[in-house]
Amino acid sequence: MNTKIVLDEAQIPKQWYNIIPDMPGPLAPVVNPQTLQPVTPDDMLPIFPMSLIEQEMSPQRWIDIPDEVREIYRLWRPAPLYRARRLEQALGTPAKIYYKYEGVSPAGSHKPNTAIPQAYYNKQAGIRRLATETGAGQWGSSLALACSMFGLECTIYMVKVSCTQKPYRKSMMQLWGGTVIPSPSEFTNAGRTILAHDPDNLGSLGIAISEAVEDAATHDDTNYALGSVLNHVCLHQTVIGLEAKEQLAIAGDYPDVVIACCGGGSNFAGLSFPFIADRAAGKQVRCIAVEPASCPTLTKGVYAFDYGDTAKLAPIAMMYTLGHDFMPPGIHAGGLRYHGDSPLVSQLYNAGVIEAKAYKQNACFEGAILFARSEGIVPAPESSHALRCAIDEAVLAKEEGKEKTILFGLSGHGQLDMGAYDAYLSGSLEDYEYPEAKIKEALERLPKVQL
Amino acid sequence: MNTKIVLDEAQIPKQWYNIIPDMPGPLAPVVNPQTLQPVTPDDMLPIFPMSLIEQEMSPQRWIDIPDEVREIYRLWRPAPLYRARRLEQALGTPAKIYYKYEGVSPAGSHKPNTAIPQAYYNKQAGIRRLATETGAGQWGSSLALACSMFGLECTIYMVKVSCTQKPYRKSMMQLWGGTVIPSPSEFTNAGRTILAHDPDNLGSLGIAISEAVEDAATHDDTNYALGSVLNHVCLHQTVIGLEAKEQLAIAGDYPDVVIACCGGGSNFAGLSFPFIADRAAGKQVRCIAVEPASCPTLTKGVYAFDYGDTAKLAPIAMMYTLGHDFMPPGIHAGGLRYHGDSPLVSQLYNAGVIEAKAYKQNACFEGAILFARSEGIVPAPESSHALRCAIDEAVLAKEEGKEKTILFGLSGHGQLDMGAYDAYLSGSLEDYEYPEAKIKEALERLPKVQL
Repeated sequence: MNTKIVLDEAQIPKQWYNIIPDMPGPLAPVVNPQTLQPVTPDDMLPIFPMSLIEQEMSPQRWIDIPDEVREIYRLWRPAPLYRARRLEQALGTPAKIYYKYEGVSPAGSHKPNTAIPQAYYNKQAGIRRLATETGAGQWGSSLALACSMFGLECTIYMVKVSCTQKPYRKSMMQLWGGTVIPSPSEFTNAGRTILAHDPDNLGSLGIAISEAVEDAATHDDTNYALGSVLNHVCLHQTVIGLEAKEQLAIAGDYPDVVIACCGGGSNFAGLSFPFIADRAAGKQVRCIAVEPASCPTLTKGVYAFDYGDTAKLAPIAMMYTLGHDFMPPGIHAGGLRYHGDSPLVSQLYNAGVIEAKAYKQNACFEGAILFARSEGIVPAPESSHALRCAIDEAVLAKEEGKEKTILFGLSGHGQLDMGAYDAYLSGSLEDYEYPEAKIKEALERLPKVQL
Repeated sequence: MNTKIVLDEAQIPKQWYNIIPDMPGPLAPVVNPQTLQPVTPDDMLPIFPMSLIEQEMSPQRWIDIPDEVREIYRLWRPAPLYRARRLEQALGTPAKIYYKYEGVSPAGSHKPNTAIPQAYYNKQAGIRRLATETGAGQWGSSLALACSMFGLECTIYMVKVSCTQKPYRKSMMQLWGGTVIPSPSEFTNAGRTILAHDPDNLGSLGIAISEAVEDAATHDDTNYALGSVLNHVCLHQTVIGLEAKEQLAIAGDYPDVVIACCGGGSNFAGLSFPFIADRAAGKQVRCIAVEPASCPTLTKGVYAFDYGDTAKLAPIAMMYTLGHDFMPPGIHAGGLRYHGDSPLVSQLYNAGVIEAKAYKQNACFEGAILFARSEGIVPAPESSHALRCAIDEAVLAKEEGKEKTILFGLSGHGQLDMGAYDAYLSGSLEDYEYPEAKIKEALERLPKVQL
């Protein structure tokens, strides 16, 4: 039997799956941070094109993928689904382990799945430039790639400390024609305000979002693009799960459990939503969102209205949150460091439809090394969270003597994350659990939304 | 029509193509550096297993690929063949441009195609450890990967300056369980001799080969593995060209010109040899080996017997050479820095069967940026030499108003070579042509072989 299950380009999905009509109850409104009242589509027009705003709240279950987007998807999609036979052997497990590998994209992760359509719809709307933020650089490099494909300019506010820690991802953005601005910067009010109080501020994702949103809102020819969290981002990522279902069907299999790492939530959404859709047909797949113990939004956060960014410029959303002024600890290796979580993923978790787990980073890297030495591929630190959980599920299956089919998302490769691997291999990578007292304190700063 | 032509795993070649019986004339003997007489298989046994020694001089046109090797190949093979439609559009050329992409391997290059069988045959021979050298790190990381797949230890003598310049590739070797030793080192006579005269020596590929060969020759449980140059390495790489031929046949095409970058020669051999084989059937494909102007072995070197390494431990071979004490200039960005060239490739070039071209590195990076912004993938600096030549052929076709089918080898991705891209983008990358006077001088140090 094949190690990889590979589809033909003609099998790239022609429609994205929109989970909104299948949600357990109505969506909470998105709230304007100034008025504390629900946003209207018009509120969003200064930073998003109408086509994406419509997708954000569409009641249609299936949304056509434009041909122009599918043309670019063809550069790397369909992404392979692997049966991890050598990992199964290394674990001695009776479980079947499959992984959907998104590291084959030019940027090395799943992020281009949404960067490409976002660039496309903005180009269609006559926009000349996109502004965005990036932390570890996976999203910024993906949007730079997408903009180069459609002839758009791209300005990326990159968390200052990451510019130093991840110089290669910064270079990739420039290689694809992007302009990288270390954040906080002097280019925006949001950045200047922070630098006035704290000139040595190393930046955070929340601050960088504030800068990018302000840049977009204050320039007519410029829109904003977000790499996760929003409904339309989750929508675009469903190509992952839709392909994986086709591929598992070819293998004659269906997963008992679907596992993906979860930061802003779009990677998890992309893999799991198409399987959650099968619940209507009576299929009871478990879906586990895996997050770092140092940014445990689902497992330790609260389900509440909170700001999307530090400067309170982005809309307020009902979501699991650690507080909008959350600063991830410097020791944290990977991405997955947003204070909040996708409202869709949050609602599903709150309704008990999905599960969540948090892992410390040394356990994840331990799993990643085992994986690299059996399957070859070097996992992204983010993806290693899902991988670690999949290993634990497989070991449990062995202990229980049960057959089980596990599908996990290998959302990217880790070839640009060698600094973190070095730290792990030299024993200097620290584990850190986000303290509950900090969350309690952050709760006092949540917006007081009354609808 | 598809952008990628993808084969099923069942179509991974079952045999490698051995060009030896199809060479234009008998092979020159390989010569023992001590006796200056032809080597016998027994001379090679201290460092190679008999199965590889047999492949080195086999008269069989087709050699079976062991099932255990094909099993590992399945982790990434068959590699995709792309039609570069977006690059064609960017160039406005009537030429069809295809590229065979080997960056999908876990190590990111074509090197595992031979690392895997070399590790396998050594494991079969009861060897416990492999020693090798690496420059930029592509080969060292590939052999570490291969050793981890077969449970072998791996010792890699890495050119000292590369340990600093390419820390990420060093980390990848360690991640796959390899032991990296900066070369020249205190662990071998070859290393100690050099350090005694020059404690600050930054190393070269020739020195690192000397150390690895000495390590293998002086330890019974240890063999040596070379990442290019040798006949069996070229043999293993023919999976590239064999797959590409199948894929082009599916597209209903056949190349007018096949282009690959050429350092030690195995990448060029891998893509081109299966097409050269078609000459017997009257197909007249041009094959162009592309090398850097800073290490112009074929285009500026001499065809002569020369040592394979600096310390004169490795066999003497008849090949194009710049002299065995060649030191590539520090400004040179990519790999492709071996002083010699595969004896097979050299003989074909000397006989006029293939062509060769040399390019300066700024022109190559210029092409690589155009490629990344149209096709997405970031090319390895080595591969950008082939890419640049393919662009020039496509532009020529436009000027001449001719249809033409171009196939080039994209032997790896460049995500770990961002330092070189940074230098190019900031305008600080220098061009350098290796001076002819240096070659003249080196000729005086060639071994005096009289057979």
